[in-house]
Amino acid sequence: MTMKSAPIYFDNAATTPMDERVLEEMLPYFKNNFGNPSSVHSHGRNARETLEKARKKIASLLNTSPGEIIFTSGGTEADNTAICGAIETYGIKHIITSPIEHHAVLHVVEHEVKEKNIRLSLLECDAEGNLNMDQLALLLEKEPNSLVSLMHGNNEIGNLNDIERIAALCKQHGSYFHSDTVQTMGHYPIDLKALPIHSLSGSAHKFHGPKGVGFIYINKTKKINPLMLGGGQERNNRGGTENIAGIIAMAKALELAFDDQASHAEEILQLKTYLKSQIEKNIPGVTFNGLSGNLDKSLYTVLNVSFPPSENNQGMLLFHLDLEGISASGGSACSSGARLGSHVLNALEADPSRENVRFSLSRFNTKAEIDHVVKILAGLYQA
Amino acid sequence: MTMKSAPIYFDNAATTPMDERVLEEMLPYFKNNFGNPSSVHSHGRNARETLEKARKKIASLLNTSPGEIIFTSGGTEADNTAICGAIETYGIKHIITSPIEHHAVLHVVEHEVKEKNIRLSLLECDAEGNLNMDQLALLLEKEPNSLVSLMHGNNEIGNLNDIERIAALCKQHGSYFHSDTVQTMGHYPIDLKALPIHSLSGSAHKFHGPKGVGFIYINKTKKINPLMLGGGQERNNRGGTENIAGIIAMAKALELAFDDQASHAEEILQLKTYLKSQIEKNIPGVTFNGLSGNLDKSLYTVLNVSFPPSENNQGMLLFHLDLEGISASGGSACSSGARLGSHVLNALEADPSRENVRFSLSRFNTKAEIDHVVKILAGLYQA
Repeated sequence: MTMKSAPIYFDNAATTPMDERVLEEMLPYFKNNFGNPSSVHSHGRNARETLEKARKKIASLLNTSPGEIIFTSGGTEADNTAICGAIETYGIKHIITSPIEHHAVLHVVEHEVKEKNIRLSLLECDAEGNLNMDQLALLLEKEPNSLVSLMHGNNEIGNLNDIERIAALCKQHGSYFHSDTVQTMGHYPIDLKALPIHSLSGSAHKFHGPKGVGFIYINKTKKINPLMLGGGQERNNRGGTENIAGIIAMAKALELAFDDQASHAEEILQLKTYLKSQIEKNIPGVTFNGLSGNLDKSLYTVLNVSFPPSENNQGMLLFHLDLEGISASGGSACSSGARLGSHVLNALEADPSRENVRFSLSRFNTKAEIDHVVKILAGLYQA
Repeated sequence: MTMKSAPIYFDNAATTPMDERVLEEMLPYFKNNFGNPSSVHSHGRNARETLEKARKKIASLLNTSPGEIIFTSGGTEADNTAICGAIETYGIKHIITSPIEHHAVLHVVEHEVKEKNIRLSLLECDAEGNLNMDQLALLLEKEPNSLVSLMHGNNEIGNLNDIERIAALCKQHGSYFHSDTVQTMGHYPIDLKALPIHSLSGSAHKFHGPKGVGFIYINKTKKINPLMLGGGQERNNRGGTENIAGIIAMAKALELAFDDQASHAEEILQLKTYLKSQIEKNIPGVTFNGLSGNLDKSLYTVLNVSFPPSENNQGMLLFHLDLEGISASGGSACSSGARLGSHVLNALEADPSRENVRFSLSRFNTKAEIDHVVKILAGLYQA
């Protein structure tokens, strides 16, 4: 009898398990310190104090001021807020984005383009997902009052965009720059005093916090109208009673992420490097999608592997891995239910006869897990 | 030495403490069962199963089908979704609402009216907050393709609107009917097979669930476009990774609320009746705002007391209560930070020289707490 091994989780770009210390931090805010931060009595004031402490902590980790951090229900709401808000507030008539953005950006952009008679420019990207930066410069020159929405780290292929350069270009032309930073938040240092960006987004469950809570940074020189209208919460920037427990948890999770960010990054990069070399050694013909095989130019958390065509595994590789208790992904979780294939890999014109698997790592993964996965993969690709 | 008594919470219309059993139910979904329900692997499938179980439970409690329940970040998002969605989907050019709706309705209505060249009719209401139903009938007759947004129970003055009658009128004219049911959800039985309504909203933290999670019911015959655009979550009705722990908690909280709804209602009504009679007995000159003094026509959870003008307490009554450890409210928590006064009491042309306090009760309140509050109030109103 063989023991079924514990499930192995390699899908941390989809969501991460919560850190035990985050859970401990949030627990007191469910039952005891339960007030509504908008209430003026003692229950409310306690909640307000908690809320503002969390805001201050996040602002300080990103080197910005608390008034520029607005809490949301997650990364999607943050991206929707930035895009709809910038368009409405600044009368934007032209949007620049790329075909490999997350759907939380692309779908709202498509909606606004359709409903509001806005023109759309999609930046060209090459087979590795590198964006055409010359095209961006030309477009901004031609039309300075544009909204630019370009992500920091790609959730599927791991590509890191040069947001400093994009921000500088936008600054030069006076354009609005939003970046979906959901995949890099908590994983890369960010200094908002140094980076001339107008808004960016964060989602707690991508850095070992809970689901259902996120934030948007909105630069105070480029305020935007709210998406959610209701009470005067978040200084009139977002209606709705604040998710205090979630917010305190997110602040703690971000603090833990930054506490030893460099050593975590190093540790996970070593895992990724090892995974890459072991896969290359054991499975002939593998390549890597996007820049994910380039250790300097991609997220240290993401390796998107392109496996050679195989009779055994045709369309079934993820299924075989799942049977072995290994959770990995074909692309973004947000559309994996739809099984339409990855819009990112399609944009890169990836070979449809190959099998693509995104392995995404966290500090909870181990070398032993990688050895196990590679062993299973090698078995699946044996002649 | 006098002992400071434990704080007393009479602001349950603002938010409620979480039930211990709800917390127990949600705990496993933070660390262990943490998958993203859109992922197709085992971690994802477990999360998906949890999600759909919660949806089924809520649908069954409201006697409707699971496909009509869409999870949101709370009541505000649900109201915003209904109003923006109905306008966009059905090309609505006329909205009917009332001046005593919650800001989660009024502010989004005002925004849409301003941005989209939509006409607005505010129903007249009398000094008790009764809506002019003849006016509603006339307006619908004149303009059938209207969006009607009228709440079930008013959060400040407790008035219960006759939503059966409003729904019937809307049905007769083929108009879209949304109801903000945030204050009644979990407190009153609701049968969505019997009630011809198109959408309604719920917020978990108003019925002893967590903050940051809610839902919208959308009748399957009147689908509406989503507010939040991103991944294909919630059958393309709401982008964003689902807040699994919050959703499972909300389902549990609603189940507990309905398990012995009638006996809870009876219990809290007795508390309200007692509070009302003790206040009347001990403080000469009190009246009750809206219909909250009418035990049949108002929420059993809300008593909005109008205290006579008083030199001692001028503008300070809530502050005095707070000093005694009693948390009550002047109106909606969502705008109490703004201190602009209550838009609801303004609409009722309440006497500005009187002090208004909303006491809102839950099943965690006791008769002893009421005795204590009345004693304090009597002291504050002694000659």
